[in-house]
Amino acid sequence: MTTTGSTLNSRQRFLAALAGEPPDRPPLWIMRQAGRYLPEYRELKQQHGFLKMVKTPELATEVTLQPIRRFGFDAAILFSDILVIPEAMGQPYRFRDQGGIAMEFAIRSDNDIENLDTGSIRERLAYVPAALQLLRRELDGRTALLGFAGSPWTLATYMVEGGSSTHYEKIKELFYGDRPLFEKLMEKITAAVIEYYRMQVEAGADAVQLFDSWGGACAGGDYEEASLKWIRRILREIGGSVPVILYAKGLHHRINELADAGAAAVSVDWSADLGLLRRALANPVTLQGNLDPALLNTRPDIVRRQAEAILDAMKGYPGGHIFNLGHGIMPTAKIENVEALVDTVRGS
Amino acid sequence: MTTTGSTLNSRQRFLAALAGEPPDRPPLWIMRQAGRYLPEYRELKQQHGFLKMVKTPELATEVTLQPIRRFGFDAAILFSDILVIPEAMGQPYRFRDQGGIAMEFAIRSDNDIENLDTGSIRERLAYVPAALQLLRRELDGRTALLGFAGSPWTLATYMVEGGSSTHYEKIKELFYGDRPLFEKLMEKITAAVIEYYRMQVEAGADAVQLFDSWGGACAGGDYEEASLKWIRRILREIGGSVPVILYAKGLHHRINELADAGAAAVSVDWSADLGLLRRALANPVTLQGNLDPALLNTRPDIVRRQAEAILDAMKGYPGGHIFNLGHGIMPTAKIENVEALVDTVRGS
Repeated sequence: MTTTGSTLNSRQRFLAALAGEPPDRPPLWIMRQAGRYLPEYRELKQQHGFLKMVKTPELATEVTLQPIRRFGFDAAILFSDILVIPEAMGQPYRFRDQGGIAMEFAIRSDNDIENLDTGSIRERLAYVPAALQLLRRELDGRTALLGFAGSPWTLATYMVEGGSSTHYEKIKELFYGDRPLFEKLMEKITAAVIEYYRMQVEAGADAVQLFDSWGGACAGGDYEEASLKWIRRILREIGGSVPVILYAKGLHHRINELADAGAAAVSVDWSADLGLLRRALANPVTLQGNLDPALLNTRPDIVRRQAEAILDAMKGYPGGHIFNLGHGIMPTAKIENVEALVDTVRGS
Repeated sequence: MTTTGSTLNSRQRFLAALAGEPPDRPPLWIMRQAGRYLPEYRELKQQHGFLKMVKTPELATEVTLQPIRRFGFDAAILFSDILVIPEAMGQPYRFRDQGGIAMEFAIRSDNDIENLDTGSIRERLAYVPAALQLLRRELDGRTALLGFAGSPWTLATYMVEGGSSTHYEKIKELFYGDRPLFEKLMEKITAAVIEYYRMQVEAGADAVQLFDSWGGACAGGDYEEASLKWIRRILREIGGSVPVILYAKGLHHRINELADAGAAAVSVDWSADLGLLRRALANPVTLQGNLDPALLNTRPDIVRRQAEAILDAMKGYPGGHIFNLGHGIMPTAKIENVEALVDTVRGS
């Protein structure tokens, strides 16, 4: 299925797919590819801890490169965390021993929102462009370099709930019960995300991903006001200077709204049937996805067969396809299964 | 919007909506309406414990009636649990202290499946028809009486994972890695569910709900083989003798497949926009849903406004609409919010 020649390097292949041109084969990267399933990552983490790795450009660079060295993925995504933005605004966080995130406090009042500092984003997140510049040099145009951020709604869930949440009760009470205050918070977060993306673009990111990981928790009639309208604003502001991949979990029933919002690509979770989804699209946006991450915990033959099913479902698609998982890889994933995935996509 | 007269009792209203005839107003019940948010339930539970309440027809009857007495819901759903089926087949379970379910063992082998006993379902679940008969007498044709069961896929997740699960890795390994063994298990569970529904119909259930609560965890291309084909079989076997409401969480993007499977109604979670969903339907099946259960933890004015938005979205729908939540009510729900919901739907 060579359409643009087989001498593409990874970065060219990735950018071609993002631009909607089917390259020699779908480019491949996987969400959370620099992570705990890798022994070399676990070793470094044990030595330094997560937040120090995020905030030290040399360590973040090293961790970002680990999966590129091992698997030759077509894109390297900066090792970081969506919660560096609330932290930079003055709301620190930590990982709970029993799993999940705990913010140092929860946003509860107008005063809490007033106190969020958006003026120091550049200064406090200076380690991010520093890492991206190091990576840009290391990758040397051979592998695409991705930045990322959380969507305003997704960040707001952590900030208002005070950490990870199951039912999102407090953010929903704010959204339904005090819309002006909700909007005041979202204005601040949205401005911070835009500024943060600008820093990433200036530092040399080839593309950025926007994670609306918890947008699927919104009531159907309210997704636009709760989340999508803030995403639209970000895409208007930065979509012209860098291609944006919009990852929206549990939202592929809105594929046409998502595709129309202005992202270069829409990334969908594994519950989407790509064969049906591509036919539901009014216009062929680049699709990213969507192997079930649970399969990377099973066996290589299973991974191979199911990855092939996805490749088959996307065969002849008139837009681009970036192969990825439907959500982040789990710490329990097996290296041999990632290898089987890489071989399958590379051989397609 | 009276079309069949305003002298309907709750049962007539409920059955009319299930038959696709818009009655005077949408009938209302809420999933898990007999539960921990009710002080009278908590009192009885403290005294007897959950499983004793489930297995004692007089207690199950009392708990089932509690929300009917308090709120006058249009349907009473038998107080029970989807996991009584694995238990009756020889796989007991308990509630973990930290939340969630632990099965006494996990199904791992052909031998484990062989040992599942489907022949004693009637005998071991005799407390269910006994409770339904008591309820039938108490309700006296004024309130609809609902039975229910879990879908084969949803039950299999508990049985193979050994309890509640986040990523469904073991059931997926079975499904993708040993299809004949998966199907052998599903044959047994499906036969047990069919037998169980027959018992409920014979004992006087007006309708039954089928909970495919974890169907949304399936990879998009595999939902048919993993879950829907077994649901189809159940609907073929019992859909002729009793109306079935199919609850499928995270699956409303498949609304036409679900509607075509043979259920009288499809129940959707809160992430569906009913205004969009009704337009996506090829044929107007009765829809059940879909207020966000998190809203019952907020304030009466919020509940009233959002319930009205759902009523508005369904106005003039040519099929039936049964008002419900998008998932079970939470233990933290407030009575005053349930009252606001009841007032709003009753006043519509």
